Amino acid sequence: CPVASQRHSDYFDPRAPPPPPRRREAYGMPPSSPPAAPGAQNGRVFSTYSIYKGKAALSLDPRPPQFVPLDSGAYKVVKEGFVLLQFAPAVATRQYDWTRKQVFSLSVWEMGSVLTLGPTDSCEFFHDPFKGRSDEGKVRKVLKVEPTPDGNSRFFNLSVQNRLLNVDESIYIPITKGEFAVIVSTFNYIIPHLMGWGTFTNSIKPEDSQAYTKPQSGPEYEWRR
Amino acid sequence: CPVASQRHSDYFDPRAPPPPPRRREAYGMPPSSPPAAPGAQNGRVFSTYSIYKGKAALSLDPRPPQFVPLDSGAYKVVKEGFVLLQFAPAVATRQYDWTRKQVFSLSVWEMGSVLTLGPTDSCEFFHDPFKGRSDEGKVRKVLKVEPTPDGNSRFFNLSVQNRLLNVDESIYIPITKGEFAVIVSTFNYIIPHLMGWGTFTNSIKPEDSQAYTKPQSGPEYEWRR
Amino acid sequence: CPVASQRHSDYFDPRAPPPPPRRREAYGMPPSSPPAAPGAQNGRVFSTYSIYKGKAALSLDPRPPQFVPLDSGAYKVVKEGFVLLQFAPAVATRQYDWTRKQVFSLSVWEMGSVLTLGPTDSCEFFHDPFKGRSDEGKVRKVLKVEPTPDGNSRFFNLSVQNRLLNVDESIYIPITKGEFAVIVSTFNYIIPHLMGWGTFTNSIKPEDSQAYTKPQSGPEYEWRR
Amino acid sequence: CPVASQRHSDYFDPRAPPPPPRRREAYGMPPSSPPAAPGAQNGRVFSTYSIYKGKAALSLDPRPPQFVPLDSGAYKVVKEGFVLLQFAPAVATRQYDWTRKQVFSLSVWEMGSVLTLGPTDSCEFFHDPFKGRSDEGKVRKVLKVEPTPDGNSRFFNLSVQNRLLNVDESIYIPITKGEFAVIVSTFNYIIPHLMGWGTFTNSIKPEDSQAYTKPQSGPEYEWRR
Repeated sequence: CPVASQRHSDYFDPRAPPPPPRRREAYGMPPSSPPAAPGAQNGRVFSTYSIYKGKAALSLDPRPPQFVPLDSGAYKVVKEGFVLLQFAPAVATRQYDWTRKQVFSLSVWEMGSVLTLGPTDSCEFFHDPFKGRSDEGKVRKVLKVEPTPDGNSRFFNLSVQNRLLNVDESIYIPITKGEFAVIVSTFNYIIPHLMGWGTFTNSIKPEDSQAYTKPQSGPEYEWRR
Repeated sequence: CPVASQRHSDYFDPRAPPPPPRRREAYGMPPSSPPAAPGAQNGRVFSTYSIYKGKAALSLDPRPPQFVPLDSGAYKVVKEGFVLLQFAPAVATRQYDWTRKQVFSLSVWEMGSVLTLGPTDSCEFFHDPFKGRSDEGKVRKVLKVEPTPDGNSRFFNLSVQNRLLNVDESIYIPITKGEFAVIVSTFNYIIPHLMGWGTFTNSIKPEDSQAYTKPQSGPEYEWRR
Repeated sequence: CPVASQRHSDYFDPRAPPPPPRRREAYGMPPSSPPAAPGAQNGRVFSTYSIYKGKAALSLDPRPPQFVPLDSGAYKVVKEGFVLLQFAPAVATRQYDWTRKQVFSLSVWEMGSVLTLGPTDSCEFFHDPFKGRSDEGKVRKVLKVEPTPDGNSRFFNLSVQNRLLNVDESIYIPITKGEFAVIVSTFNYIIPHLMGWGTFTNSIKPEDSQAYTKPQSGPEYEWRR
Repeated sequence: CPVASQRHSDYFDPRAPPPPPRRREAYGMPPSSPPAAPGAQNGRVFSTYSIYKGKAALSLDPRPPQFVPLDSGAYKVVKEGFVLLQFAPAVATRQYDWTRKQVFSLSVWEMGSVLTLGPTDSCEFFHDPFKGRSDEGKVRKVLKVEPTPDGNSRFFNLSVQNRLLNVDESIYIPITKGEFAVIVSTFNYIIPHLMGWGTFTNSIKPEDSQAYTKPQSGPEYEWRR
């Protein structure tokens, strides 16, 4: 963010407006807790990070990994979490139509790809939400992350071709360097938690450790020290 | 921090002095818990990080995000946290006048901008605390982060023009590479927590996960694996 | 991950297939909770991160540090944790033979070495699981991490020479930039926890801190401020 | 860690030996829980990370920040934590004399300086444990971090001139790139916790947030959105 007077509006305009009015499920905020959605339950926390720009809004919403109990009483991760990206087009100044949102579930390794992007790199990901089912191939989603022509920002672009609903949409949103740094910082933070490694570390209790005091070596738990 | 004998005083002087005397709300420490402030309550922790230099002191104070309960029993972040920067001028050796402090609330994305700064980059942010209200435009704050002429440190500079109080002040404080690295490390740490993603990850409980065992796919929760 | 049409299959193929069928302890998933293994107990969480490719699968499994109680009631780390790497060869499309897996326990400092790898760097580690015992030298394991010829990915290669079982195997798996970024992110996360520093920070309680209010200086706890 | 056959011993030798025998307070392990030390109490966790080399051993030990309770029931950090470095000379193969150890308390901003070190950079820090007291100037400690001549490792060197005890010692220990990466990773992790920001984030509870629902703007809590 070098100082450049003509760019002050970049800092000021896109986020200076008060957040859109909080009407229920309307043009304002992304609906962060659909009552029927998996995961809407006591104790859950919805922590959507939203970026509002002139033509679109983008919200990022982490979703937890899934666990199953084992016979031993321990738990095992059976499905990694992800970050749900929601893109909504602007319909008026500071008004976004979340009923027309398009979504993309960013996996842990796709987040890793985003983390590796140099200032001039691009990447794209393809998803088919019906892959392996009868409607496979009818919905095609492409998420692109690419530098803006001036090299100071990036575009996040979600294109959705949905032949079931006859929808063919593309939503662009510019992301400044500072916002991208926030995304990088949060992806770095959230990746181990989406993999269940945060839950693993929370389960480390010194007082449960006595069972470990015997040597663990052997061909399975080889440990050279 | 290359070894350079003439710079030893950089390492030694600015922080070697004992911290300023801890008089109550006086010239010594930044007042970290104003009783009437929002957030001063049981269970809170005030963890101000202060840097004391010859002409000024700078303290950094994280402030938590705000949540609202949902009908489902879950919680939702409605406002991101921030880091309150407090600048106080020195009035004597190791004495800082916190009654004349100037403050700046650094947002998550502004922290992201600071994280992206290369050694020779600058950035600046503008705030109007009365934006959208009747006194809009009467107070103008500018925070600049820019390299020192020798390139070994950075200046944090807060300028405040307050026409309501007839105040026009500018406070500079040099920040060494090591101190800036601490700031970078703490911003990287705190950003996900200010966005509520830390609270999200704390809410991940393996034993609450049984509800997730059914397939989640579909046009909404598309997931290509 | 620059956009390159011929590489789309890189993004899509290796992980697009549904995860292998979850037969118990069979060709599908790595056995993440062997009942007789040290550490399989109530409250434990198994959070294996697996990467499935055409010729092999690699799973990463963090294992906790070991603690012993002290007379004072405190705990002390006596053995660092590690990350268990498990390599399994593919026997058919999307079928991996975990009964023929080879394992390698990656230590904290070996993870540190992986973190320092530039895009064209390689490193290798040698383990003898029987080092210091009668069968020393009979099993020799070498883990290599090296760039692929096109420079876009890395190979993780585990070679095991086991004279006790007359096994001489070498398993390769290509790791994309995005997957390597995930590994880097998780290693950065897990290292302090494997060293017990996560447990240390969890033990920091403001309300236990009164005992610290006396000065701590002196030749032992020297502190120059 | 590029592959180079003559360097294999670098990977294998310094840490391959079994850890020194765990005699009580003797030549083996650094004494991590002196009973009379501040902080040795129920619930504490000692998580010393030790590096053993041919001529010396270095252990790193995090020490928590100090808090005081406020009238409001909240807590406030009054002293940052630090990392205690302990250097012990080798007296025989795999035997270190911890009774002759020299210690250095690395502050948060000194850790920040270490984090900024490029591969060929050096830095040094000076401490006087009696600064501001009658014995000021009688003990002088210098910690240097500098690249080894071949550029593949770093030396950590602690020099202590103690005129009170007529001691003038200098202990060197080589730290490989992988070990330095572990130190960087753990410093990045521990810095926010030593500043009390980890305790701050632990205190964020969604259910305590209702008090925050009123607007916070104004000259003090200026917030431009």
